[in-house]
Amino acid sequence: MTASDQSPAYDSDNIFAKILRGEIPSTAVYEDDDTLAFMDIMPRADGHLLVIPKTPCRNVLDASPAQLEAVIRTVQKLAVAAKAAFAAEGVTIQQFNEAAGGQEVFHLHFHVLPRHEGLPLRPAGQMGDMDAIAGHAEKIRAAL
Amino acid sequence: MTASDQSPAYDSDNIFAKILRGEIPSTAVYEDDDTLAFMDIMPRADGHLLVIPKTPCRNVLDASPAQLEAVIRTVQKLAVAAKAAFAAEGVTIQQFNEAAGGQEVFHLHFHVLPRHEGLPLRPAGQMGDMDAIAGHAEKIRAAL
Repeated sequence: MTASDQSPAYDSDNIFAKILRGEIPSTAVYEDDDTLAFMDIMPRADGHLLVIPKTPCRNVLDASPAQLEAVIRTVQKLAVAAKAAFAAEGVTIQQFNEAAGGQEVFHLHFHVLPRHEGLPLRPAGQMGDMDAIAGHAEKIRAAL
Repeated sequence: MTASDQSPAYDSDNIFAKILRGEIPSTAVYEDDDTLAFMDIMPRADGHLLVIPKTPCRNVLDASPAQLEAVIRTVQKLAVAAKAAFAAEGVTIQQFNEAAGGQEVFHLHFHVLPRHEGLPLRPAGQMGDMDAIAGHAEKIRAAL
């Protein structure tokens, strides 16, 4: 059983590929040679951000070891920073594979969600206020 | 900002530490030098399993790079196998940090959940049927 048995091909027209090529804007909070972290525009919590590899893969099912390792290191870095930035009491990490698994954009991404006791996640699919998101991004950058 | 600013100390009385020491049983599906994968006894989907490092850490906030990298490689291996074992159309991965983030056992773990179109996750916190879980584990082992 190999990953290629499991996963359709990568489609370079997905919106995160376009963000990586600079064809559409994003609110970046962190970048290194291998990964990019930027704000989710439909935040389910203040500080909700996404971490992606800079190279193509569809999701965890077809990612290379190097992609997975680079992304999980950046997830940790951003989880620690976002928790501090929002004085959060916890962090929820979600990662969806294929539509049945919850995936909507077919470029590997991890969701990082700062959490506070008693405050449920907001419903998915609701556009955030872009000024508020820009302010949240600044808080995360300052905590890195 | 370091992880140690963020996270309470590791408590070696947690139930996953007891599983690793063989003090309480688990239904293992995979093991290597650095990680263990075993069935969740409160499965939110058929094939719901957990991946943990064999060495102590509380969650993503205090894990070492080596722990994170070993665990994410095993998560991928089991995600591919569990998807195949259940002819699933997707896989959802969840990872909770601190109680506010959804964490209940304070040893780093990733949830791997095979998913089928239109079938929501079952509610959390409901004990599964142990015979059914043993059968699911066998299907996953056979797909590895």
